[in-house]
Amino acid sequence: MTGTQPKAHGPNTVRHSGAAYFGADTPAHGPAASQLSMRRHNLALVLRTVATHTDLSRADVAARTGLTRAAVSSLVDELIAAELVREGPMASSGRAGRPGRTLALNDSGPAGFGLEIGVGHLGACVTDLRGEVRVWRRVERANAHRDPADVLAALADLAADARTEAQTLGLRPLSPLLSVPGLPGPGPAMLTHAPNLGWHDIPIATLWPGPDTPELENEANLGALAELWTAHAPGNFLHVSAEAGIGAALVIDGRLYSGSRGFAGELGHMPVHPDGPRCTCGSRGCLELYANQDAVLHAAGLPEPTTTDPVTVLTEHANAGHPGALEAIERAGDALGIALAGAIGLFDPAAVVLGGAYAELGGWLLPRIRRQLENRLTVRPFDPRTVTASPLGRRGPILGAALHTTQEMLRNPAALGR
Amino acid sequence: MTGTQPKAHGPNTVRHSGAAYFGADTPAHGPAASQLSMRRHNLALVLRTVATHTDLSRADVAARTGLTRAAVSSLVDELIAAELVREGPMASSGRAGRPGRTLALNDSGPAGFGLEIGVGHLGACVTDLRGEVRVWRRVERANAHRDPADVLAALADLAADARTEAQTLGLRPLSPLLSVPGLPGPGPAMLTHAPNLGWHDIPIATLWPGPDTPELENEANLGALAELWTAHAPGNFLHVSAEAGIGAALVIDGRLYSGSRGFAGELGHMPVHPDGPRCTCGSRGCLELYANQDAVLHAAGLPEPTTTDPVTVLTEHANAGHPGALEAIERAGDALGIALAGAIGLFDPAAVVLGGAYAELGGWLLPRIRRQLENRLTVRPFDPRTVTASPLGRRGPILGAALHTTQEMLRNPAALGR
Repeated sequence: MTGTQPKAHGPNTVRHSGAAYFGADTPAHGPAASQLSMRRHNLALVLRTVATHTDLSRADVAARTGLTRAAVSSLVDELIAAELVREGPMASSGRAGRPGRTLALNDSGPAGFGLEIGVGHLGACVTDLRGEVRVWRRVERANAHRDPADVLAALADLAADARTEAQTLGLRPLSPLLSVPGLPGPGPAMLTHAPNLGWHDIPIATLWPGPDTPELENEANLGALAELWTAHAPGNFLHVSAEAGIGAALVIDGRLYSGSRGFAGELGHMPVHPDGPRCTCGSRGCLELYANQDAVLHAAGLPEPTTTDPVTVLTEHANAGHPGALEAIERAGDALGIALAGAIGLFDPAAVVLGGAYAELGGWLLPRIRRQLENRLTVRPFDPRTVTASPLGRRGPILGAALHTTQEMLRNPAALGR
Repeated sequence: MTGTQPKAHGPNTVRHSGAAYFGADTPAHGPAASQLSMRRHNLALVLRTVATHTDLSRADVAARTGLTRAAVSSLVDELIAAELVREGPMASSGRAGRPGRTLALNDSGPAGFGLEIGVGHLGACVTDLRGEVRVWRRVERANAHRDPADVLAALADLAADARTEAQTLGLRPLSPLLSVPGLPGPGPAMLTHAPNLGWHDIPIATLWPGPDTPELENEANLGALAELWTAHAPGNFLHVSAEAGIGAALVIDGRLYSGSRGFAGELGHMPVHPDGPRCTCGSRGCLELYANQDAVLHAAGLPEPTTTDPVTVLTEHANAGHPGALEAIERAGDALGIALAGAIGLFDPAAVVLGGAYAELGGWLLPRIRRQLENRLTVRPFDPRTVTASPLGRRGPILGAALHTTQEMLRNPAALGR
């Protein structure tokens, strides 16, 4: 990455802040409105208009936004210079006056760059500004309890390959965002707690063997954002990704809700049977005891696989009609349904999306989850069809990581020129 | 109320919308910025500056906001004409130039007006723009299973008395907001479902015997907002008000979170012991079976009182060391703690506030709630001191109803002049 390349914004830019403020959606706060902020507003407005329509000319953009033709032209020139917008063929508009070229989001130039460390794989992904996946790398690799420096070296190699391939396509990946199965922060690029990797307090920035240090975000959060941005999930939804651990993420008004300290979305230790067996966390009857992949494998009487992942084994056995596997998966579905009854009552999401590897078990899990919810959510109307499995499945987190940067460019194009 | 009086804004103005939108906190959406929206922004900025400081002159406001002295003077004149700001004595500023008068929020003129129907009482409350309670009426009255028209006639009399008293104080109460123990909407002033009153689909607007029809809001939501506005509760918190029913409300970034359909905050039917006894809702082991006032009274072996309310009876017995009452209250605390463990894990609030009549039982409930939380919230740091009882107690909902209007005036002063 060159020194002149703009810095991608961190994950916090799409989150609700935890800080208290007064009337946050109103003009009552912040400094006095200025010409500069109006220009930034209008730059984003023009980009958004181009992004959500096809074949608009500058005149069409002016008509849709209420801005003058001259102002639109100046703003479009700025967006073209920043490589965010490109001009196409002449518009076939029936308007009076000189016809103009059509405008579209650029399919080369600045691009989103996602990386991923999973318990059993590494990944790299580049998306263009339109949100299209242009480079995709995924290698199976057992990372749990391995030396973090070794894992990061392998990931950096994969990232360099992906970057080179992107460059041959005319793309310029910005700073990468790394999806991790754990809790990032508080410092930059610090992985505090990743229990399923057996890693604690790993200084990713220090260990990273290259100039282009990634920022970190939790995989469950990124899976939820990928759902928001690609699958057209509604603005308020609950995303549940279950595999090694069980993670949840709340999207509210189209943004990730991270809680007052960044800890929101802890569903795995919700008490499902509060007098049940002891959990490793010290509590009793937590959801993970009934629904994470190891618990289900164990309940199914299946050994831990060495060459593939537990969810694939469970899927194969369920497909083959293995009674123990079916019973264990259905029991997990009941536990998920009990936990989700509480979560839906509190949050009233427009949808619940089951993501991650567990999406592959949706055919067996969803009927049990929905039955629990239908039996328990009776005070308010509830539609079981609002609970679905994600079409993204395991691809969600790394896709969310790459799209994060492109979404940020669309949201705040002025930042790219700074 | 005269025909020229501005209409108070409905409760939804302080809520998160349920609608999906893109980058809601950014300038990328909405129409192009205009001079009019800049003036509205700056009007609110000046009012907010006056509200949060004492003894500022116009010159001081200009210095703090970055606006010109001339612009501030014009905006202050507009705020004085709208009766939102008044001038006080000369400022003792050491500034060069002509000294100016100090500015303060008006303590007469437009005022907030809250009304309340409880299971066992009616209430009316008027607050001035500074948030001070200026008129307070509360009468005990058994309303459950009574003819709604009779109850509303009694409330309208109380409201008329309160308005007259406010007028003698120089206050002009705006449209009232009515706190109800149930679910308002979807139409205006329709009370859909108030199980503890035994009321369903009551057209308040039709039955109201006067010109000044109130808008409706749920009491648990208003209690949470009162906490936000008076007790300086942090921006993200969970408010739990338990008495006849158990209601919860989520405040996120200083605004009430109402969910995708307005149903957020349902805590009473969270499964606490999912294989437990059957609830009236059809589910099993709901929180209300262990923690609402009737359940606790019954578990304590106490008869339902006829001359006072159940929480007062429980408080008296607990104070007297009645073993059955103490045991039943502690059992309720355990159930609340189990439910809150799930809620806190998901939502990561900065605080949990126990409000409503149950705040009076805080001395017995809180130790049990905190113990459950300490035992169950081990994956993330948890401080039991963040769980407290509200100092507002039963007064919260009606106070929230009155303050709603004054907060809206502070937030959006331009609306008052329209």
